[in-house]
Amino acid sequence: MNAPRPLAIQDFYPDDFAHCYGCGRLNPHGLHLKTYWDGDETVAHHTPGSHDVAVPGFVYGGLIASLIDCHAMGTASAAAERAAGREIGQASAPRFVTAALRVDYLKPTPHGPELEVRARVTELTARKAVVSATLAAGGVITARGEVVAVRMPDTMRG
Amino acid sequence: MNAPRPLAIQDFYPDDFAHCYGCGRLNPHGLHLKTYWDGDETVAHHTPGSHDVAVPGFVYGGLIASLIDCHAMGTASAAAERAAGREIGQASAPRFVTAALRVDYLKPTPHGPELEVRARVTELTARKAVVSATLAAGGVITARGEVVAVRMPDTMRG
Repeated sequence: MNAPRPLAIQDFYPDDFAHCYGCGRLNPHGLHLKTYWDGDETVAHHTPGSHDVAVPGFVYGGLIASLIDCHAMGTASAAAERAAGREIGQASAPRFVTAALRVDYLKPTPHGPELEVRARVTELTARKAVVSATLAAGGVITARGEVVAVRMPDTMRG
Repeated sequence: MNAPRPLAIQDFYPDDFAHCYGCGRLNPHGLHLKTYWDGDETVAHHTPGSHDVAVPGFVYGGLIASLIDCHAMGTASAAAERAAGREIGQASAPRFVTAALRVDYLKPTPHGPELEVRARVTELTARKAVVSATLAAGGVITARGEVVAVRMPDTMRG
């Protein structure tokens, strides 16, 4: 018997809010980042395109910030659901947006290997989540992120 | 008589380090952000593409982080040159990379208007610059950034 296929939180964002360039399943040009639970952490993977460089051989820092940002929003959503007693796929997922993003670039990130982003929620209230993240290339952590996520305000609803 | 056309610092990065996705003139797929002096500040402009959304109607936060990041690196380079007594275009420009990036998203950034990024250097040493930036849409500041830039390390030279 096969293990059940893991589910990504972004696949359960409401259709009206699933167009994010970084992680929206309905954005035809986007990165389509997917955030999965892995125990108490979340994990996402992305392989940069050939043009996603800062200088030749190293990944563009804006992409690193984008991956950490979207994965943190997904982690906040998944954690809010888990706190409410639901796992991914049992309901529509709440949409968080970024209030503050901090990324520390610890060392240059080599271009080539698949990148792995891991995150965990360090603080969770009804309105807000604080998420700590790491980004690794070939098993070596090259960047750390700290992201404040808030529930999407009504002003962003069409 | 016309005023001289302003020069962008990124047009004077050495060819070997002019491939950045955000601001490299030699990246065919990139954003080609250009940083100009405007008095003691620097300024850059960018109009997001139709797919650069977080949710419909609002600009993707990863793009906002990317614009602030690249403009801050350009500002660090221009300020280092000015500290050395040179204006943009008088010499090859030094390349800085991001050590830390912090972005505070003050309010949702409407998708549609051209974005304006402004920055100034608040601290400058031989090795490092600290840059404060704002991002505005339609004249309203929607995000603030604080970026630590360091001279590109030798490990990133091919």
